[in-house]
Parts: sequence; structure tokens; C-alpha cells
Amino acid sequence: MFANRMPRYEILDEDGIATLERGWRRILTDVGIEFDHPEALDALRGAGQRIEGQVVFLDPDFVLEQVALAPSEFDLQARNPERSVRIGGDAMVFSSVYGCPFVREGAVRREATMDDFERLVRLSQAFPQIDTPGGVICEPGDRPLDSRHLDMTFALQTLSDKPYFGSVTSAGNARDSIRMTEILFGGRETIEATPALMAIVNVNSPLRYDERMLAALLEYARAGQAAIVTPFLLMGAMAPVSIPAAIAQQTAEAFAGIALAQLVRPGVPVVLGSFLSNTDMQSGSPGFGGPESALGLFCTGQLARHYGLPWRAGGGGLTSSQTCDAQAAYDALNTMSAAFFAGANLVMHAAGWLESGLVSCFEKFVVDIELLRVLQEQFTPLQIDEESLAFGAHVEVGQGGHFLGCAHTLERFRTCFYRPLLSSTANFERWLRDGGLDATARAGEIYRSTLANYEQPALDDAVRAELEEYVMRRRRELGD
Amino acid sequence: MFANRMPRYEILDEDGIATLERGWRRILTDVGIEFDHPEALDALRGAGQRIEGQVVFLDPDFVLEQVALAPSEFDLQARNPERSVRIGGDAMVFSSVYGCPFVREGAVRREATMDDFERLVRLSQAFPQIDTPGGVICEPGDRPLDSRHLDMTFALQTLSDKPYFGSVTSAGNARDSIRMTEILFGGRETIEATPALMAIVNVNSPLRYDERMLAALLEYARAGQAAIVTPFLLMGAMAPVSIPAAIAQQTAEAFAGIALAQLVRPGVPVVLGSFLSNTDMQSGSPGFGGPESALGLFCTGQLARHYGLPWRAGGGGLTSSQTCDAQAAYDALNTMSAAFFAGANLVMHAAGWLESGLVSCFEKFVVDIELLRVLQEQFTPLQIDEESLAFGAHVEVGQGGHFLGCAHTLERFRTCFYRPLLSSTANFERWLRDGGLDATARAGEIYRSTLANYEQPALDDAVRAELEEYVMRRRRELGD
Repeated sequence: MFANRMPRYEILDEDGIATLERGWRRILTDVGIEFDHPEALDALRGAGQRIEGQVVFLDPDFVLEQVALAPSEFDLQARNPERSVRIGGDAMVFSSVYGCPFVREGAVRREATMDDFERLVRLSQAFPQIDTPGGVICEPGDRPLDSRHLDMTFALQTLSDKPYFGSVTSAGNARDSIRMTEILFGGRETIEATPALMAIVNVNSPLRYDERMLAALLEYARAGQAAIVTPFLLMGAMAPVSIPAAIAQQTAEAFAGIALAQLVRPGVPVVLGSFLSNTDMQSGSPGFGGPESALGLFCTGQLARHYGLPWRAGGGGLTSSQTCDAQAAYDALNTMSAAFFAGANLVMHAAGWLESGLVSCFEKFVVDIELLRVLQEQFTPLQIDEESLAFGAHVEVGQGGHFLGCAHTLERFRTCFYRPLLSSTANFERWLRDGGLDATARAGEIYRSTLANYEQPALDDAVRAELEEYVMRRRRELGD
Repeated sequence: MFANRMPRYEILDEDGIATLERGWRRILTDVGIEFDHPEALDALRGAGQRIEGQVVFLDPDFVLEQVALAPSEFDLQARNPERSVRIGGDAMVFSSVYGCPFVREGAVRREATMDDFERLVRLSQAFPQIDTPGGVICEPGDRPLDSRHLDMTFALQTLSDKPYFGSVTSAGNARDSIRMTEILFGGRETIEATPALMAIVNVNSPLRYDERMLAALLEYARAGQAAIVTPFLLMGAMAPVSIPAAIAQQTAEAFAGIALAQLVRPGVPVVLGSFLSNTDMQSGSPGFGGPESALGLFCTGQLARHYGLPWRAGGGGLTSSQTCDAQAAYDALNTMSAAFFAGANLVMHAAGWLESGLVSCFEKFVVDIELLRVLQEQFTPLQIDEESLAFGAHVEVGQGGHFLGCAHTLERFRTCFYRPLLSSTANFERWLRDGGLDATARAGEIYRSTLANYEQPALDDAVRAELEEYVMRRRRELGD
């Protein structure tokens, strides 16, 4: 797991933080948040919050007290203990793209299948830069809607030994995720002691939690699992066309959900989620990778630290590009590097995102892995000491010489610099001889060879059998 | 001209700065710098520096005194006063790619010509993100070597009204650049009062200034024009395989040249140059765009501010990629954004760089313009105040609504977000209908339409005639 021990890039001064706090407080008290779930309304009413219909007018001081109950850092278990991660502090955890109905391979764009899902889980397992495949790495459209969460969870559990996300599509699905995780980890107690699931709870922004997401939030909170409470804000659609307004809204919405989770189970781990971008006012479509996404990340990171919460960066390798081209690359790096500068604790959509999140792209997956490799090296503190000054090399080489053959270089040439996975520095003639492939074509070769060399992590036969039995039984019960 | 009023990203603590200073001081005193020019040696000897052969052992305190004579900021004149720029402080000045023998358009890579040079100057003139075309935006291989600097300078002076760079290939060429600039600006006095030329003086690293560069440095310093004193450091070749060692070397080398310039003309403007990357130890070729380049920029910016000098970032849109693909885009953004985070004052190679600097690429030029547009927006401070909170919009839209039609959005939709030049957010079907062009193909359309719409800036007929006469006369004198 990567720890970001470099400085944070912070752009808010105290006045700015105070102005934003005035903003989110006023949204909670004067406009309120809608909760479309009786149990949520009961819990908030019981905590003395004023309610009209389904709209809860929250007391900001109460909300801050609830937020303070959430741990600033927590551990997330993997079935392979070496793959367990920390969420919070200096730790940065990277998860693959989530939620795409389509996949792209080379020039082919098509509906995603369970086979695609499994291959993307294998890629997530194979690349050490990815800490968790996440959850819905693509939507397996060839499996029945009612029960595909079982297939996905089983694949996440068996094809990878990294942590994974739980299903949030209904209370029942959340319970299935939790039950299957209990089986994998040897019982409820183990995962209550240290959570083994994260679940993305999206706000139905603006200012509304729908029944489905609240049901999932309540299930995961009760089980002591970690909700990533994420306002989904495209400015111009779900938020005003102003970054400060959107940040105030994001804080109000996320804090309201976090306050509810803490009412259900005080101290339950949560993650402050951010997924902030803008509508392209010319095309009317969502825009990703631009300045607004990066500025949103800088602000969110600073506020998360101010309020003592671990936080999620929306992405990760976001782009609106339709293909794995130059735009996809610069968009992705712009949000990915902003997540590093801002010190995000969980970076979702860190590999494979294309076409505004509609497409899981295999080549883009490898491009993003290269970005993660570069940035993880770039955000490792320089050691500056007498040895690093390499004075002896200067004495040896002197004026007008060459350092390639000097002792200092010979001792270090294997490890002294970043070694690319995808990028090529070959000269033009050599590159032509090697086929003249651009980076996307080379990425295609890399993901295919990675899949060919994939090794499935071992799993106890009895546990696998129990998971299979559970999936089959539940699939029957669901009528699929 | 863009002013970067966002915070600087700094990674060195006081100990780090002190260790690096110990490093560069020891290089100057114990290893020394070779100066292959009698006038330079005379000047340094006259200032009391110890000399053996052509190697000067510089007193670091003397060097710091000389460095302190250089202005921390200065103005650079353009013939159109609206295009004049500031070098230093918050100002960031962007120049096009420099020095490439080849060009690339679409799938064609070929030797550069004077026609290419002129078209690249027109592009530099047309895009407001570029403050100066620079100098050798490509090497016009179809013009005689001896006199092509005249053709290039004439093109820079007549096809653009932005500032430009002087030739550094010999003392005579430097004098031609200065003389032609005197003609354009109406006399020596004008350009001595405010410099109108910058010139790249590369160190022949390690620790050596060659005769050609010193001759140019001396000419420009005498004329009061600004030298960009730039150690050219590929770690593993011209520097040790250690970033701190390379930074210490860069500082020693640049300070030695700056000290010389200040001896020639105390107070002459100079720029601390940085061009730091690494050899790819697997291919043996230079590598650009990786973590080492970015870390080098963070360190250099901080040291430049520590010593009160304006500074140049090497790039800009650096990449080793052979074509304008995903790698070219992420490499370029990684160095370009690092230059912004580090607060570079002059960003060279900010548009068009490809293939480790061997190729000026027309499509890449447009990709880099898009990167500059994104970053200039991203590095503009957020206004966080009551109006920006847009509270009225939240009251108007409430829970579960949409902000597209609300009053706050309607008043601001034209200017509220970044508007791309190149990037597409079109949905897949629309994108396919529009031809399904990737970003590089669209960049091709943009540079061709930009050239088609180019308007040459007006120039006084008498000045033009005098420049033409000068070029013809000197060309004859040079035997071409």
C-alpha cells in the first residue's frame, strides 16, 4: 500500500474554510436534506432534528458531533492479510473503475459481460498499484439483474485476495454482500472487529438520499462496515455552477449521511466521498479531467483533514474521451495527480475509466497503471543527504566527462530511476523496427500478457464450497 | 501574460536546502568549472578566482554576491507593447518548442524546413497561451547553416509581434540577433533600457562552458540582454544518477555562468535555467516526463526563490514518445503541471515538443495548448465569498431538482467553467456522427484552421525594409 509522505497542496485559507463552513451549515439548517427512508427519519427525529415530510433540517453542531465519532483512520481487511489496507492518514488506496455498462478493447466498444468482469478483476489482482478491484468494475449485462451482485461478489472473492466493495443496489443485496463476506472471513465477529467491506453510498444530489442508498447505508453501518458517503455532483446539473457552492453542498450532503451512520452505530468507519465535476455547458454532457475536478479535490482534501475524516477522491483517471487517446491520458493524469497533491486516502476509478464512466477500457486500465506507477514514485520523498550528493562521482568524472560508466552509476543503475511499464523512450528507428506501436496499442499487449500470466490466489476448498452454495441458494430464491 | 497566484508546491526543508548548498559550494571550490574562452577566464581571474588551465575554482561567497546582482524580476520587450512580458515573480511565460531537426504532421515525420519554421511561428503568434515563439522552433534544414539564423530571426520579427530569442550558435550570430533587434526596436538604447532578447546559454555539462556558448553569453550580457543559463542534465550521462547530486550540479553550473554575466555587466538580467531529466537505463535513451523531471522542477523552483532568481523550467510538454499518443499527453502534462506547481517563470518547450526534442509536432502543439489552457484556469485562485456560495440557487432548486435552468446558472453558463479547445465531451453516438476522430486527429484540424485564419501583425515598411537589407547583406557576407 502506498503512503503519500509528500506535502499536501492546500489552496484554502482560514477565511475560505470559514466561508465554506457558513455555506454548508446554512444548507443544513435552512434548506435541509431529504431522507427517503422511515428508519433514517426515525433515527434523526430521535436525535432531536426537526423534520418536515421527509426533509430533515439538521443542527450543524449536532452534525459535527456525529462526524467527530467517525474514526480518522481505519483498517480494511483483505482475506490475504498482506493485502489489507489502511484508510486515512498518509495511506492512499487505489480502486479500479466502477459502474460501467460498456467495455472497450481496441476498436471494439460493446456491452459488458461477466467474462469482462472477471478479466478486469484479474487485472486488478495482477497489478500491485491497485489495492482493490472495487466492486462493479463493469456491469455484467449478460447476468440477471436481480442476482448478478452474487456473481460479482463471488468473482471478487475468488479471483482476487484484495479487499472489495459491497453491493448497494438494495438492502437485500447489501445483506448478501455482508453474509458472503462473513463466510469468507470466518464469521460476523471477525468483520465487525475490523471491517472487510466498503460500500459506495451515493447521495441523490441535490440534497436527497433515496431509499435504496439509505437501505444500504443502514445495513453496512449496522454491520460495522465502511460506507463511502459520496455526493455525486456535476455542477450545472446536481449543484450550482460554482466550485465553492458545490463544495459547501458536498460537505452538507456527506455530513448528513455520516451523521446518520454514526447514529446507527457510533464510531462506525466512514469515508467522506467527493465526486465533483461539471457539465460542459456547450455539449450538455458531463466533463471530466478539467480544472474544476482538480480544484474540487484540493478543497475536499483540505476540508477532510480539517474535520478529521478519511476521504475519497472521485477519481482517479477520469476523462470524457471516447477512446484511449491523448485526451484520455491528459484528463486522467490531471485528476489522478490532483488526488496525489491533495492527499486523497481512497482514489476510486484509478484504472480503466473511459467515456465519462460509461466504459471500462482495457487499454486505459494499463495507461492508468502507468500513471499510478509514475505518481507513486513522484510522491516518494527525496532523500537529501551526503550520500545522495554523490560528490565522488563529480570528482571521478570532472569537466566534460560522462557519468554512465562511473562507479556511482554502476552501483545504482538498476534502481536509480523510474522504470516504465508502458512508456517508450526508444529512438525512432528502434521504435519503428519494434512495430511502431503507439502507447494504446502497447497497452493492449500488456493487458493481454498480464491476463495470460495471471495466477489465481489460493482459497480454502470448504470456504469456496460454502460461497458457491450460498450463491446458488440465493440465486434460486431470487428466481434466477 | 499569465500570473500564477496559487501556492507553490515545495518539498525541501531547511536541512535539504543546506545540504544542497553544501553540495554546490563543494563542486565550485573543489572540482571547479571549465570555461573555454579567454575573455571569460580573464574576467574571473580579474575577480580573484583561482584558475588552473581552463578550470576555475570559484569562491561560493563571491558567486553568491554576483548572483545577488541579478534582478529577481525584469521586463522583456515585445515590438507590440501589449505582448511584452515580465520574467520573475508570479509571472509565467510560455515559449514554444526549441531546437528540433525534424517535424511531424499526422503520420509524416521528416526533416524540418523554413516553411515549417514559419508555420510554427504563426501558430505561436495565433495562440494567446504562448507568450513567445522562442527561437529555433525547428531547425530549417533547407537553409544554409551559416545564415539560417538570419532567416529565423527575420521570421520571428515579422510573423509575430511577441518577444523572441536570440541566436547562440556563435558570437557573430549573437551580434546579428542583437543588431536586428536594434533595428526592430529603434536603436541600441531602447533595448539596453529594457531587454528585448532572451538567449539560451546551455552549459556543456558536466561542469564545462564551451567557447560557442560563452561567446554568446558575453555578447548578450554586454548588450544588456537576458541569458537563460541552463545546465543540460540528463542524469546518468551529464550528471550523477541522483536528483540531489544533479540539483547541486545544476546550481553550481548555472551560478558560475551567472557570476560571469554579472562580471561583464553588473545587474544584467539572467534566468536560472533547469533542464533536468534522466537516461532510461534500459534503453540508454533520454527519458522525459517521468517522476525525476517533476521532482527536479519542485527543487529548482524552491532554490530559485531561495536565491532570488527568476527561473526557467526545462519544459513544458516534454515526452520521449515517438508519436502524439497517450504517452505524449501524460508525459507532457506531468512536466507542464509540475512547472505550474513549482511556479516556473519561464516554461520552454511549452508547445510542440515530441520524441525527446528531436521533433516539432504540429498536432502535439495543439495538445499542449489545451494543457496550458487547462492549467492556466486551474492555477487561478478560487474566489470564495458569499456570492460564490450561490445560496439562492440551493433555495430555488431544493431537494432532488436540477440546476440547469435556475437563475444562478442562466446568468453564468457562458463563463462558469473551463471551455475546451480540443477536448471532447460529446456522447459516443454524437462523437461517431462527427467522424469518430481521436484527440490527435482533432488537433490536426485545429492547427490547420488556425493557420488558415492567421493574420500577420502589421510592421512599419521602413523597418521591414531595413531588416531585409540587413539579412541580404549579412547573407552575402557569410557566403550564402
